[in-house]
Amino acid sequence: MANIRLWLCFDGTDFHGYQRQKNGYTVQEAIEEAIEKITGFVSPVIGCSRTDAGVHAKRYCANFLSNTHIPMEKMPLALNTALPESIRILKSEYVPNEFHATFSAKEKTYEYLINTNKIANPFLARYCWHFAYNIQLPAMRDAADLLLGTHDFSAFMASGGQTKTTVRTVKSINLTEDDGVIRMQITADGFLYNMVRIITGTLVYCGIGKLSVEKIGELLKSGDRSQAGITAPPQGLSLLSIVY
Amino acid sequence: MANIRLWLCFDGTDFHGYQRQKNGYTVQEAIEEAIEKITGFVSPVIGCSRTDAGVHAKRYCANFLSNTHIPMEKMPLALNTALPESIRILKSEYVPNEFHATFSAKEKTYEYLINTNKIANPFLARYCWHFAYNIQLPAMRDAADLLLGTHDFSAFMASGGQTKTTVRTVKSINLTEDDGVIRMQITADGFLYNMVRIITGTLVYCGIGKLSVEKIGELLKSGDRSQAGITAPPQGLSLLSIVY
Repeated sequence: MANIRLWLCFDGTDFHGYQRQKNGYTVQEAIEEAIEKITGFVSPVIGCSRTDAGVHAKRYCANFLSNTHIPMEKMPLALNTALPESIRILKSEYVPNEFHATFSAKEKTYEYLINTNKIANPFLARYCWHFAYNIQLPAMRDAADLLLGTHDFSAFMASGGQTKTTVRTVKSINLTEDDGVIRMQITADGFLYNMVRIITGTLVYCGIGKLSVEKIGELLKSGDRSQAGITAPPQGLSLLSIVY
Repeated sequence: MANIRLWLCFDGTDFHGYQRQKNGYTVQEAIEEAIEKITGFVSPVIGCSRTDAGVHAKRYCANFLSNTHIPMEKMPLALNTALPESIRILKSEYVPNEFHATFSAKEKTYEYLINTNKIANPFLARYCWHFAYNIQLPAMRDAADLLLGTHDFSAFMASGGQTKTTVRTVKSINLTEDDGVIRMQITADGFLYNMVRIITGTLVYCGIGKLSVEKIGELLKSGDRSQAGITAPPQGLSLLSIVY
């Protein structure tokens, strides 16, 4: 059996997240069905991260074991004909057997979009959080700076995650604004369950003065989720890139 | 009764076009329901153009008669709370009684997007025609130039339209390309039924060498729809602006 790595992207609006579950149709299920259809064999497809319902991926990585004879360069086209148009396979390649899409990941970058304009934009509705408040970007940036580096991010984790350690290293957080739409890009060696969405909600709370920037240090020390901001809604979140 | 003009935008994916019909839910129906809900009265809403199912509008104009006391500056927010998020009212204002959204229009600009990349983009799927061919932009531009000015556009009209004359004046056609996505913007004093989509299909045929550029002059003379290109699919089309 060869280990095959897929690079893909998906619009998560109509899926119940990446990972297979009983309650709804998932990206994993769609890809596994497509693989079975074109190779004739059932292959579990390991994803680089669980993503919540409604979360998107501009670049996602997955791997599966197969003895298919389909050439790697033909795999994307073959799979795409069997997939819904909301998922596209971009590249397929053989990787060493040790490669594991989840555990081999060294770094991930997520993006979160917040539309602060008074009137929502129908063309962005699936891809941003419409939060029509006057958000102060400098305060968000000051708060973001305090999250950089290696910390215990317990205060920024939803319950339900499975993880050995709650320590993560945030390498960068960039905040820009264009036409009333705030774009946050965050890079870390890994993320806890709902970490990006809770960081977003917390930075936004700092941006509207509901939380003081100084509170961030306390949050990192106390690990008290209840003192952080809300969990920003899923549709604003996209996985942008992943490094192995 | 006062004449009220609405400026709005909508993602047309989930609608059966603007105009009320028996077969499906339309933008007009959604707006009329919202107006009835907030003013208490049924008011037919005249749109600036019929649009086909799946066609979008970045800026659309409509008008209706009403004796509502809701201040014009509060109207967008009030209507938006009653509308699906795929439609947003941007502005509301009183206009003279003579104003008619359809007949008062002096100029419209439409945009059409064609994704020529081999692999489709899930985030553009609702907003472009995925046509993965090597399209020569210079040939498209040469063909477009021949359409500029005042002509009988019978060859670029689908049957089913109601119009007194098939003569229209095309003021500009701009073709640009970014990252494999071709963007056509076309401005005219008015458009026949399916005219932009048939022009798009015809220019694309010129771009892939299926139709010679010289053929455009013949088409304008003969008015023979069967000699023009295909009707490009609806989801690539958006109304960009309208001048009164």
